[in-house]
Amino acid sequence: MTEGKPIECVAAIAWEAEKPLDVTTVIVDPPQAGEVRIKIVATALCHTDAYTLDGHDPEGLFPCILGHEAAGIVESVGEGVTSVKPGDHVIPCYQAFCSKCPMCKSNKTNLCGAVRKWTGKGVMKADDGVRFTHKESGKKIFHFMGTSTFSEYTVVHEESVAKIDEKAPLEVVCLLGCGVTTGIGAVLNTAKVEKGSTAAVFGLGTIGLAVVDALREAGARRIIGVDTDEGKFDRAREWGATDLINPKKYDRPIQDVIVEMTDDDGVGGVDYSFECIGNVQVMRAALECCHKGWGQSVVIGVAAAGKEISTRPFQLVTGRVWRGTAFGGYKSRVDVPKLVDGYMEGKFRVAEYITHKLKLTEINQAFDLLHAGKALRVVMSTDG
Amino acid sequence: MTEGKPIECVAAIAWEAEKPLDVTTVIVDPPQAGEVRIKIVATALCHTDAYTLDGHDPEGLFPCILGHEAAGIVESVGEGVTSVKPGDHVIPCYQAFCSKCPMCKSNKTNLCGAVRKWTGKGVMKADDGVRFTHKESGKKIFHFMGTSTFSEYTVVHEESVAKIDEKAPLEVVCLLGCGVTTGIGAVLNTAKVEKGSTAAVFGLGTIGLAVVDALREAGARRIIGVDTDEGKFDRAREWGATDLINPKKYDRPIQDVIVEMTDDDGVGGVDYSFECIGNVQVMRAALECCHKGWGQSVVIGVAAAGKEISTRPFQLVTGRVWRGTAFGGYKSRVDVPKLVDGYMEGKFRVAEYITHKLKLTEINQAFDLLHAGKALRVVMSTDG
Repeated sequence: MTEGKPIECVAAIAWEAEKPLDVTTVIVDPPQAGEVRIKIVATALCHTDAYTLDGHDPEGLFPCILGHEAAGIVESVGEGVTSVKPGDHVIPCYQAFCSKCPMCKSNKTNLCGAVRKWTGKGVMKADDGVRFTHKESGKKIFHFMGTSTFSEYTVVHEESVAKIDEKAPLEVVCLLGCGVTTGIGAVLNTAKVEKGSTAAVFGLGTIGLAVVDALREAGARRIIGVDTDEGKFDRAREWGATDLINPKKYDRPIQDVIVEMTDDDGVGGVDYSFECIGNVQVMRAALECCHKGWGQSVVIGVAAAGKEISTRPFQLVTGRVWRGTAFGGYKSRVDVPKLVDGYMEGKFRVAEYITHKLKLTEINQAFDLLHAGKALRVVMSTDG
Repeated sequence: MTEGKPIECVAAIAWEAEKPLDVTTVIVDPPQAGEVRIKIVATALCHTDAYTLDGHDPEGLFPCILGHEAAGIVESVGEGVTSVKPGDHVIPCYQAFCSKCPMCKSNKTNLCGAVRKWTGKGVMKADDGVRFTHKESGKKIFHFMGTSTFSEYTVVHEESVAKIDEKAPLEVVCLLGCGVTTGIGAVLNTAKVEKGSTAAVFGLGTIGLAVVDALREAGARRIIGVDTDEGKFDRAREWGATDLINPKKYDRPIQDVIVEMTDDDGVGGVDYSFECIGNVQVMRAALECCHKGWGQSVVIGVAAAGKEISTRPFQLVTGRVWRGTAFGGYKSRVDVPKLVDGYMEGKFRVAEYITHKLKLTEINQAFDLLHAGKALRVVMSTDG
């Protein structure tokens, strides 16, 4: 029994930006009041981890344990925790859900703020402290996004734990902790795409493909995939894209190309567009390729610090709508279990995003794969 | 009987930008197929007329007859016109409604494009020509916005004529041809403001006041009026504003002030904001004063040519929505008659915006009043 005791285990510490992770031993404290200690079974690598490790996040705190797309099993719970118990299969959610705050009570947003104040500072609410200590040096290690899944064991707030069907394969549904969920939700919750719609998807990585998959599921009649890497086109077509275009092949703005491609009504432009890259110029193109009168563009990608989006206000006055999404608009603890069920029922792809499988101890290879642009999702297991 | 014959009448010609209008005699040709000739009874002056006369509209064509906020009586109709007949009371609408194009068939927009191609070039669809000739010089005069109401008689496309209740006072309901309608529709159609909402209104001229009036009608619980001219505050309070603030009185961005003012839930920000000025910096403030998770900002003002709006995409990713409105989202020929009825039933203010009454021949005084910032609406009559 480990309950109530510190656990020694393997974790990958990010000591500072732009350095490889240090796979080492950490001591994980028992969960305090309102906290849950989870044995991570599988964790994937997402671009936000790389973004932070590369030093692009001005709020990034070091040393920390990165990782936010994972699944595991509850090892023990702190005082007052009632929504999960040891043995439950769970997905840690960087977007919390407390059910009580103004955001959770609203049906317009999923942005619960209950623990944001602490997770933003890499600490836990109970005592403003951390639960990770580097064994060798005795140094305290910050949490990351309230999840820190690059560790065999992690401690998270109860508000951040979604209990899921224990029949679901953890090494697959871990992807529902971030990217796939975000892409699906951008289409179904944020844009609310109707059957017969037209859409453009900028960036055909995991999120872009999840957007394509959800568009197909929603019955979009035309799905235009946009990427400068044509190596991604075959897979996007398989996922459901009907047209694939490479902006580098045109000598005019890609928004103009898309408006022309869709000008079967004398106006042109797509009903919906999705930016899945994090490039502010692409965000502009995504807005401007929308149909006059009703086209909506959803920003999903995370832009570098300090970058700004711009357009002529005429684009909005003539009916285009610019919005964004975080975690696909899903209320995490409520909706992630349903997404897991949806996957089990074959409603959308999840396993298909896994291009590589590694051990957690091989995590630096995972970063290399991501940076090389060859991987969709690298899933790492902790069992060995 | 004037039917079928040219009519000589008084009109105000804008010969070139930045020059006073020339009140002179024009010859107004009979309406051709699909056209309607209207005796203008009352016309108001709107900022868009001044904007064009000041040379800020890069598409502005001279010489032209300005004016787009008016009411009158049908004098005669061209071949094939069935929706109005001589004697009908009407409001010319710069935003057409044809009922047949993709935009009219959609329930998502009011931006009919049926005659836009011609009105944008100052001509009529039937022959790509104009119906106005300057009597003295014989020069052809361009139409403006498909309305050209600064004339005793004008010719417009049938798609641009809304038939209204003949009991409505034309010298009042002429205001429903642009500004008041735009403000009301921004609240009721574009934002769809719910009872109990909070809102900020930037700019307290006619459109801003119409927004305040519609917010009151929609049951908003807090209406924050923002203007640098405190002389407008008393009237805004009378219209329904609950708080009035002057950005010049603060040493920090006005969006921060508004977020603090509305922070009764620990988050802060208004549910809806409206930019009624046409200043891109204010448009940014209007977006950024919105509540995280669901705040929506509506751009109503027309910015100067070439100006762009900007913000950090994080504003959208965290749930704010940026949109715009033109003619308040109203489908002109269908909805303007209903707005006239609504005014007759006392649902919202219209007559109260009229601060000055002049004759059409005194139109240059009207421009002076508008530029001095003292007038809300100057209504000019043609009967004398």
